[in-house]
Amino acid sequence: MRDGHPRTRAELIQLTGLARSTVGTRVDALLSTGLLSPSRESVSTGGRPPVRFVFNRGAGLVLAADIGATHATVALTDLGARVLVEQIEPVEITRGPSAVLDWLVDTCAQLLLEVGRPRSDLVGVGIGLPGPVEHSTGRPTNPPIMPGWDGFDVPGHVTRALGAPAVPVLVDNDVNIMALGEHATVYPEVQHLLFVKVATGIGAGIISGGTLNRGAAGAAGDLGHIQAPSGHDVACRCGNVGCLEAIASGPAIAARLRQQGHDVSGTADVIDLVRSGSLAATAEVRQAGREIGEVLAACVSLLNPSVVVIGGQLARASEPLLAGVREVVYGRSLPLATGSLQIVVSQTGRQAGVVGAATMLVQHVMSPDEVDARLAAASSP
Amino acid sequence: MRDGHPRTRAELIQLTGLARSTVGTRVDALLSTGLLSPSRESVSTGGRPPVRFVFNRGAGLVLAADIGATHATVALTDLGARVLVEQIEPVEITRGPSAVLDWLVDTCAQLLLEVGRPRSDLVGVGIGLPGPVEHSTGRPTNPPIMPGWDGFDVPGHVTRALGAPAVPVLVDNDVNIMALGEHATVYPEVQHLLFVKVATGIGAGIISGGTLNRGAAGAAGDLGHIQAPSGHDVACRCGNVGCLEAIASGPAIAARLRQQGHDVSGTADVIDLVRSGSLAATAEVRQAGREIGEVLAACVSLLNPSVVVIGGQLARASEPLLAGVREVVYGRSLPLATGSLQIVVSQTGRQAGVVGAATMLVQHVMSPDEVDARLAAASSP
Repeated sequence: MRDGHPRTRAELIQLTGLARSTVGTRVDALLSTGLLSPSRESVSTGGRPPVRFVFNRGAGLVLAADIGATHATVALTDLGARVLVEQIEPVEITRGPSAVLDWLVDTCAQLLLEVGRPRSDLVGVGIGLPGPVEHSTGRPTNPPIMPGWDGFDVPGHVTRALGAPAVPVLVDNDVNIMALGEHATVYPEVQHLLFVKVATGIGAGIISGGTLNRGAAGAAGDLGHIQAPSGHDVACRCGNVGCLEAIASGPAIAARLRQQGHDVSGTADVIDLVRSGSLAATAEVRQAGREIGEVLAACVSLLNPSVVVIGGQLARASEPLLAGVREVVYGRSLPLATGSLQIVVSQTGRQAGVVGAATMLVQHVMSPDEVDARLAAASSP
Repeated sequence: MRDGHPRTRAELIQLTGLARSTVGTRVDALLSTGLLSPSRESVSTGGRPPVRFVFNRGAGLVLAADIGATHATVALTDLGARVLVEQIEPVEITRGPSAVLDWLVDTCAQLLLEVGRPRSDLVGVGIGLPGPVEHSTGRPTNPPIMPGWDGFDVPGHVTRALGAPAVPVLVDNDVNIMALGEHATVYPEVQHLLFVKVATGIGAGIISGGTLNRGAAGAAGDLGHIQAPSGHDVACRCGNVGCLEAIASGPAIAARLRQQGHDVSGTADVIDLVRSGSLAATAEVRQAGREIGEVLAACVSLLNPSVVVIGGQLARASEPLLAGVREVVYGRSLPLATGSLQIVVSQTGRQAGVVGAATMLVQHVMSPDEVDARLAAASSP
């Protein structure tokens, strides 16, 4: 029902192949929770018209958080993952999990006040973190820039701090939720999409066959530590040399510009320089785009996506970055793989993370298994 | 039911959530086609015992073909994709589609005679070809080593030659079917697997979330034309330079050994040399393994599989090849991606192709949509 089309009970029976009694029980349960409402579009066709039901996006709220290395975005969304209210604040991930997650829960309380809704409207929490996460447990696994977070029970802490044990808390890495957000919002019909985040780190979220591919250990999409073919011998924080991230990330570009005498301390300064027309900065960003393009050419040969989205902070200097990426990918890959390939900049921009975190949560809460489990819990004494 | 467990009607209703009447209709239809049989394992528990049904692998035959550049394997399998009889023959793909496919149909007739079954037992045909194929139509798309095959209607020709319009014919590239075969036979529980074929060409079949990922245009897995990071300037038949295939395929190794004065004309000679203990050939194959490993390290970072299978003709020189691959992949990739990664040689070996072609066909024929369509056709006047 989440596509927004109103449907009758008979249509649902036909669509799902489920028994009349099963559909009846589920519709009644969803009506009682407010997730379905009778549609206003019911039109009399003579006689008693069959009642159509429609998914009620407003029936619940999702707390969605996109927590980066130095900034966090927290939002309340409806069940269609539309942002109702959001807050962006400087938050250092290095403050550790308890401090950051307690701040998240405090912010949630504030935002609930702003929209004038009770905490009981919250159906779940979706969180993106800037490092590898074991999605099934919500625990970060050896995240390089997140001291104190390794193995931390993020869902458990948030649930306790919220005082809401029945509210599911899902966690994933920031790039996966950005891919989910961009896919759900801009490319819902696309089956094969690669979302590439270029910022302090470089990573990708992979949509294959319409769903997020997390890999065997939740580590899929780790573009940043693929060796860039250009053969630079730059040391990477991971311990290897020549990783893409050590050559083409925001800090890597900033370091090269500093060597040329420019006054830049980080990615934001690089973007400002590009926007002010600096040839040196534009050339460095374009060259970073080419380096990223070399690795993306391999990804395109391997995955054959129809859309590659470039997002993350550095995508705000999108023209030279995209030009460099396109130059190499279209030059390197075979015609069959690039014939109908679009390489574009993220349209959800800064909201990709929270929209994706909310999408992840809604997809989970509305999955048949979850709905069945809640029906079973509700009907037991 | 294809997992082989006997089940009662009641168990099927509970498992599927389908209506009692739907399950009843489907079970009756499957019984009438012979795909289900009453199980011999029914045990009386007092009173009239409920009847259990079991999937009948022997109820039909699949014609499965793995057509390579110079050799073809044709087999008849049961509905569990088990090979009943097979034939391997030298067949030049360059003879063109009509000649090759007519030979396939003639061979099918021969094999049916051998097993003493009528053509009406054939439920479908699965074919693997050594080039890119648009899976939805079964037509090759610009296959580089298959003159005359571009856009050819393979299913149409086979259906006409068989004189069996109702028999589905599915076509895919050889590496995808090998991946399906290895996955179904050896690693049915593995969700993320990469099958790499190293022979005249180099390519991969990707299993993501338990299913084959063909990509947007059916071109996924094209490892052979990813640029090898070693930076060799060897020209590739695709028009680019430095492609993995131009450096690490069987013919590339043979060419280097010829330059060193060895009498080798192709991949088979390279394997013979390795087996006879030639240090030069062993060193060249190990170096090819390292080159392949550089590209696979990127694939492992991107896809995070738990199993990488090395197959294809050159995998018969498996020790130096695997050693080279492992050396680089375990050295280059992050611990999270390689912590539980197995890199192994193909166990299905030469049968991977036909087993996979049969698996592809059986998965299609047994999919709910197909079963429903046949039920509808059978019940219409």
